[in-house]
Amino acid sequence: MGDFTSREKCATIEKTPPLDRAALERIITDPTRLIFENIDPKYLSDKLGRLQGTAQAVAFPLSTTEVSALLSYAHEYEIPVTPRGAGTNLVGSTVPVRGGIILDLSRMNRVLELDEDTMTVTVEPGILLEELQAFVEDRGLFYPPDPGEKASTLGGNISTNAGGMRAVKYGVTRDYVRGLEIVMADGTILTVGGKNVKDATGLSLKNLIVGAEGTLAVITKCILRLIPKPEASVSVLVPYPDLKTGIGSVLSILRADANPTAVEFMERKVVALGEAFLGVQYPRSDAGSYILLTFDGHSSEVEANVERVRSLALAQGALDYIVLSDPQRATDIWKVRGALVNAVEAVSEQEPVDIVVPISKTEEFIRYINDLEQSSGMQMVAFGHAGDGNVHLCVVRGERTQETWNAQLRASMEQAYAMAYRLGGVTSGEHGVGLSKRHYFFRETAPANVAVMNRIKDALDPRHILNDKKSYITGE
Amino acid sequence: MGDFTSREKCATIEKTPPLDRAALERIITDPTRLIFENIDPKYLSDKLGRLQGTAQAVAFPLSTTEVSALLSYAHEYEIPVTPRGAGTNLVGSTVPVRGGIILDLSRMNRVLELDEDTMTVTVEPGILLEELQAFVEDRGLFYPPDPGEKASTLGGNISTNAGGMRAVKYGVTRDYVRGLEIVMADGTILTVGGKNVKDATGLSLKNLIVGAEGTLAVITKCILRLIPKPEASVSVLVPYPDLKTGIGSVLSILRADANPTAVEFMERKVVALGEAFLGVQYPRSDAGSYILLTFDGHSSEVEANVERVRSLALAQGALDYIVLSDPQRATDIWKVRGALVNAVEAVSEQEPVDIVVPISKTEEFIRYINDLEQSSGMQMVAFGHAGDGNVHLCVVRGERTQETWNAQLRASMEQAYAMAYRLGGVTSGEHGVGLSKRHYFFRETAPANVAVMNRIKDALDPRHILNDKKSYITGE
Repeated sequence: MGDFTSREKCATIEKTPPLDRAALERIITDPTRLIFENIDPKYLSDKLGRLQGTAQAVAFPLSTTEVSALLSYAHEYEIPVTPRGAGTNLVGSTVPVRGGIILDLSRMNRVLELDEDTMTVTVEPGILLEELQAFVEDRGLFYPPDPGEKASTLGGNISTNAGGMRAVKYGVTRDYVRGLEIVMADGTILTVGGKNVKDATGLSLKNLIVGAEGTLAVITKCILRLIPKPEASVSVLVPYPDLKTGIGSVLSILRADANPTAVEFMERKVVALGEAFLGVQYPRSDAGSYILLTFDGHSSEVEANVERVRSLALAQGALDYIVLSDPQRATDIWKVRGALVNAVEAVSEQEPVDIVVPISKTEEFIRYINDLEQSSGMQMVAFGHAGDGNVHLCVVRGERTQETWNAQLRASMEQAYAMAYRLGGVTSGEHGVGLSKRHYFFRETAPANVAVMNRIKDALDPRHILNDKKSYITGE
Repeated sequence: MGDFTSREKCATIEKTPPLDRAALERIITDPTRLIFENIDPKYLSDKLGRLQGTAQAVAFPLSTTEVSALLSYAHEYEIPVTPRGAGTNLVGSTVPVRGGIILDLSRMNRVLELDEDTMTVTVEPGILLEELQAFVEDRGLFYPPDPGEKASTLGGNISTNAGGMRAVKYGVTRDYVRGLEIVMADGTILTVGGKNVKDATGLSLKNLIVGAEGTLAVITKCILRLIPKPEASVSVLVPYPDLKTGIGSVLSILRADANPTAVEFMERKVVALGEAFLGVQYPRSDAGSYILLTFDGHSSEVEANVERVRSLALAQGALDYIVLSDPQRATDIWKVRGALVNAVEAVSEQEPVDIVVPISKTEEFIRYINDLEQSSGMQMVAFGHAGDGNVHLCVVRGERTQETWNAQLRASMEQAYAMAYRLGGVTSGEHGVGLSKRHYFFRETAPANVAVMNRIKDALDPRHILNDKKSYITGE
């Protein structure tokens, strides 16, 4: 199950079912929106490009009607469909493991309506996060979820319930999805939720679709909740002598009623990688770890909260409390945080991991990872969303052969995930399970939970055409 | 479907299946926790007491193990089970329409753990909201959801995704459910969610159970998110010359980035009922409507937000802006809002309605209700959560005979719900569909949505033992 670690294995997993080219051409009549031959490998993979699937067609629908017709056809003939947006996922979610049709929604990328009265924006699923953010901020509004990958689509964000830096104050994507238009596996079009703030009518299908990794339905319209754009935003860099003091301080900061927007942590050794990569220097290079905070809101409120945390952090052993009042300086400091993955990748292939543990267990988990790094001899760069207990790891391949890398990665990650679950954590906070985390997800998740998820899959997509064999989906 | 309007009809709907008394006694060995004879009618109904079901037993489990064993037994012999907490629901959710066992969870009411590090509290489902609120506030923490009925259980709150006064700033119950322990219809025990802030692993079963009105599983443990208790809370009463000006002002207030906790509206004629009932006088009796606001947070922030809205409200035609600095005065003013339903019920039986419309449509909807009141001759008292578009109506029976009341209520409510749906609204924001709103829910909801919900029900409770024929559930 989901045991793909090299290109070959993945491409040959299953014979692809027959596909009637003419049938697709009747649904999507514009030949520039269908590809049957020489499919660019980018459509067969995710952002990492390591896992490759196969497909007989890529379709670029422009409307819900086209999506519906295409799914009706695929459902009738039991042809696998793999929905994709910008393909920026990191866990193989968009790898077509069973062949069939790739449903690329990236051209359904319009803003359909900005409703300032209900403070909602209605968009197609292919719009990029950075486009949406710019659109609403230009109009004095704000879409709070802010996953690291700004060139991801909203459909993708919703399908993994993406989190990001601002989740401490604002929550995750789920909290901003008011309504969705979706197409079920058999082509039926549904609107779930809407512009209402509350809804207590029957099962929340909307909340079932959010985070379902495209396994239950295809999203064709998103009604998103907006808030007024915060007046001010100030970042603070807090250096600590070591990891324990830094992480320990986070719990007090979160309990202090100072409402930080973002609380990120980085060990000094990790920051050094980013500094070298970008040529930016952090202050207090004698620190063992840093906490990077943002506060936003009205200026007076931001100022008060910045000061509230200052005394707290210093009392907890912080070496300094550096308010980044100069916007350029703040941007540079954040740039290092944002570039950590790229800094690692500039040196070597890496495996991204985004384990979540209860925030009270973050320090224990990172200490465990540091020990595992020692005992396994695999470099593991840890950083992430301290305010959420969401630890990002880059496990570095270095000079290992494919075979050694596969074996050693598996062995050490089995230990890391087992530890995370022992601490009450889960496989992923943001990336999803996709293809590449299935092994760990199945290893650690209660079989009864997996069984219930699969009963829902069987009920809503009985022919298993939608993104099959991904995430929680078991069976033949 | 759900077409019950009088006691007799409801009690005779179906022959009750056989029940093995000895089998129940083997599961719950304490005879004081089982009732087989002379079942108090309160267990056969909801808060209103108008719809009465039948049952062969009431069981009061004390543990997940007992709940699981009881459901295993009921599943095996296809015996209907109606879960209940405090029975404070208003839509017949706890009326046992198919006989069988009433599963009363009110004695599973302990606080199991307060984890100040992750800011979560773990409770059994039978704990009352007022008990939970007092417990956490005594410890400097805060559970934000605040539905009107404080003697409701947390299990009930979660099952209807209860909202309440503070939803404008803090959201609804769903937003505070971190994890649940649930027992599926066949007795399988699952933990869904946990103490993690984020979770991107497979389908969100937790979010499917929230708001499911006890139709998919029985909740046996709740892990709830807490926040620091706000330092200050200030209420403001804003009188307006008429309804339109008052409601119109709400949209501007919501867009002003002043972060109100609660935004309630009341027409003057409605306030007059409450005043008479409680002997409390509102200022500015020349007003046509009132908006009642609360702000909470740090004192300085609250003060700034109160002032932010002052100029806005006055510019929008408010007659005055009365900051209720005296806590006793604030309590009295809120008491009138809280007592509106009781004020109506002191005079006559009433039908509670809690339609939601997009906030931009609130005024149009209330104007429609005012017109409907005229044309139908039925008194309709409208008030509610202006910040959420959640309009509470009390439709007053007056001196009507049962038959006339049933017919006239149905006729006018069909018009009210149809209008709500035309405006993009839904049947219920807080109370749920239960039994008494099924007619309107089915009339207005797209059949495809109902079908998908029922496929999930069939998949997770194939023998339809859990709270069957409630909410969205169709079929024989």
